[in-house]
Amino acid sequence: MIDTIETLDRRFKLGANAGSDAIHKDPVYSYAVTLLKNQNGLEGTGLAFTLGAGNDLVCKAAQFYAEKLKGKDIEELMLDFGLTFNELSNEQQFRWLGPHKGIVHLGLASVTNACYDLWARTRGVPLWKLLIDLSPEAIVNTLDLSYLEDVLTKEEAIAILSEAAKTREERAGILDSGYPGYDTSVGWFNYDDEQVRENCKKAIANGFTAMKLKVGSKDPQRDIRRANIVREVAGSEVKVMLDANQQWNLPQAISICNDLKSMNPYWVEEPTHPDDVLAHKTLADAINPVKLALGEHVPNRILFKNYLQTGSAGFIQADAVRVGGVSEFITISLLCKKFNVPVVPHVGDMGQLHQHLVLFNHIAMGHPALFLEHIPHLKKYFRTPISIENGVYITPQEAGSSCDLI
Amino acid sequence: MIDTIETLDRRFKLGANAGSDAIHKDPVYSYAVTLLKNQNGLEGTGLAFTLGAGNDLVCKAAQFYAEKLKGKDIEELMLDFGLTFNELSNEQQFRWLGPHKGIVHLGLASVTNACYDLWARTRGVPLWKLLIDLSPEAIVNTLDLSYLEDVLTKEEAIAILSEAAKTREERAGILDSGYPGYDTSVGWFNYDDEQVRENCKKAIANGFTAMKLKVGSKDPQRDIRRANIVREVAGSEVKVMLDANQQWNLPQAISICNDLKSMNPYWVEEPTHPDDVLAHKTLADAINPVKLALGEHVPNRILFKNYLQTGSAGFIQADAVRVGGVSEFITISLLCKKFNVPVVPHVGDMGQLHQHLVLFNHIAMGHPALFLEHIPHLKKYFRTPISIENGVYITPQEAGSSCDLI
Repeated sequence: MIDTIETLDRRFKLGANAGSDAIHKDPVYSYAVTLLKNQNGLEGTGLAFTLGAGNDLVCKAAQFYAEKLKGKDIEELMLDFGLTFNELSNEQQFRWLGPHKGIVHLGLASVTNACYDLWARTRGVPLWKLLIDLSPEAIVNTLDLSYLEDVLTKEEAIAILSEAAKTREERAGILDSGYPGYDTSVGWFNYDDEQVRENCKKAIANGFTAMKLKVGSKDPQRDIRRANIVREVAGSEVKVMLDANQQWNLPQAISICNDLKSMNPYWVEEPTHPDDVLAHKTLADAINPVKLALGEHVPNRILFKNYLQTGSAGFIQADAVRVGGVSEFITISLLCKKFNVPVVPHVGDMGQLHQHLVLFNHIAMGHPALFLEHIPHLKKYFRTPISIENGVYITPQEAGSSCDLI
Repeated sequence: MIDTIETLDRRFKLGANAGSDAIHKDPVYSYAVTLLKNQNGLEGTGLAFTLGAGNDLVCKAAQFYAEKLKGKDIEELMLDFGLTFNELSNEQQFRWLGPHKGIVHLGLASVTNACYDLWARTRGVPLWKLLIDLSPEAIVNTLDLSYLEDVLTKEEAIAILSEAAKTREERAGILDSGYPGYDTSVGWFNYDDEQVRENCKKAIANGFTAMKLKVGSKDPQRDIRRANIVREVAGSEVKVMLDANQQWNLPQAISICNDLKSMNPYWVEEPTHPDDVLAHKTLADAINPVKLALGEHVPNRILFKNYLQTGSAGFIQADAVRVGGVSEFITISLLCKKFNVPVVPHVGDMGQLHQHLVLFNHIAMGHPALFLEHIPHLKKYFRTPISIENGVYITPQEAGSSCDLI
């Protein structure tokens, strides 16, 4: 039974210029941490990610939700966690502050993730194993599919998982071979050209076959120059992604993306405002065959549904420490499967939690195993940091979701 | 010069069942108040509206933004307030918590509204008079039009206001005749049928020609029965609006709205989730000629742009104590003018602030003077409460934006 709740405001200053992008010049990577402590001594850890200021407000929101779980048995809670998620996210006074977005939803993410962590620890297995061993019905019972009735019913969700279950053995080999990673840290916005060039070489030497550059400069020529540097060092076989972090308006995005076509980006990420579903559709049509990746700032399943319905996203980058935690991440992944769009999470958690979730998505849901973002800057602060070797994530074996901070 | 900042967490318990709707069973109407105090003794008051829990978090977000205005001269600040709004709303660490939505954006609304209030008090005029006396260029300099470049440039915004200025004298008579109101308080969700019937009679006796009923029951027959009661008492000439407060999913909304067609609703409000742009489009097409009203929970100009682009909204209910304050409210009103959709604000402020804004929208922007929502429950807490006589708002004459709480 959950009997003690605690939230922690943890902030980590990064090295010079690390983490910088076109909008976030000086981020302080931070976690609003929820700890759910069981009477038997087990503890569940859940994270939501922020960039520093306001992390304390997310902790307060998490505390509000977590208090409502006191006295619950974790196994009973997770039997129909979808109902609890629905109730918490629609708590009538707090709902006004979203709904289902911003600080309250980040708080809910932190609490939800602590529940899944505690559940896996209670069973003594890594989260990926807990999830892939659940029946399709048991998985869907942890989800809130409300407001998706027009595109994904409970029966369809179960059918998607049941269908994928037939071929799951074909995909289980990834547990041994490791899930591929890609390197986000070659080209932070404030790194100079020479540092980008050196980082690309290092990434390739470390076995990465995909890497990302931050773009979105006030001067488009800087973006184009740097993108060509990365392509030159990487060669034609390595996948190179460009990330504008919402810096462009629609007319700018159309112009610049067309200029960037010649260096053959694998995707262009967050070209403009994350609420602007229709701008992404117009852009996707205008720059075809260049594909868009989006979702880092998209707060919930309903906006993701809209993005998927327009067909504007080539890749969906839902983040389980931004949307309402593991539960809503799985819901969004099911939507993506229905619309046949790959899920390539943004890793606000530095991959600690998502290394579990992409294994589930691949093995139990049948999503392709593309690659998972890799950001190394916080490794020393985690008790069981992710391990990446020769460009692939080594499958974690510890019980839980690997989110304990030191 | 602004030299002292204060925020206040003010909460007001309502009378039995007042304010109840299909989702919000027991709201505590609350304001996160920002006070900006000038060296000369003048004070600006700004409000953001919540339903109770979390109002303290909005105050903390407001404090964060307000601190950045210390030492500023209000007239200089408002000369190009659009730049300040853009900078505050994109403050790089806080931005992660939205962007432009949820608690941080509510905090920004409170601060922005305090700026406009202080500006009007400094000039010794009511806010409506300050706004209608500004040149089109001066108004547009207070706005942040970023991410709207594909549909509304600065030049177009100025042109809309300049065009409307040519005929403004024709509309100035409303200052004497008063802006029409409509009565939201006849049919709160938890009122029984008899109370709804009596309230309708009273509203008509008080001169209202439009009124609203809360729907969204688990039992659609209750909605239909109550809607017919209101229509029966009101007669065919009075406008009757129905408000579902997001309670329906899309298939339900299509079914119930078609059943409600026969009582001829003037609009159906918030039928489903406020992020679901495409569901509103599908619904609007499916229940034509019934029109949708939406916007109470839509957080910013970008999502409103999407709604307007789909043509799904018959009426836009932006709320200046939900979006980023007066500045973004005017921006959204300009977008609506461009798309030829009327603005009928939701009044989280109980009409105190919006009575000024609808006069500006009508006189200086050329929007039709439909009617402004009227909710009487907090009148006794305002220093200069709105005055409504024979169904019309009496034009306020005090300096400022009428938002001081006692």
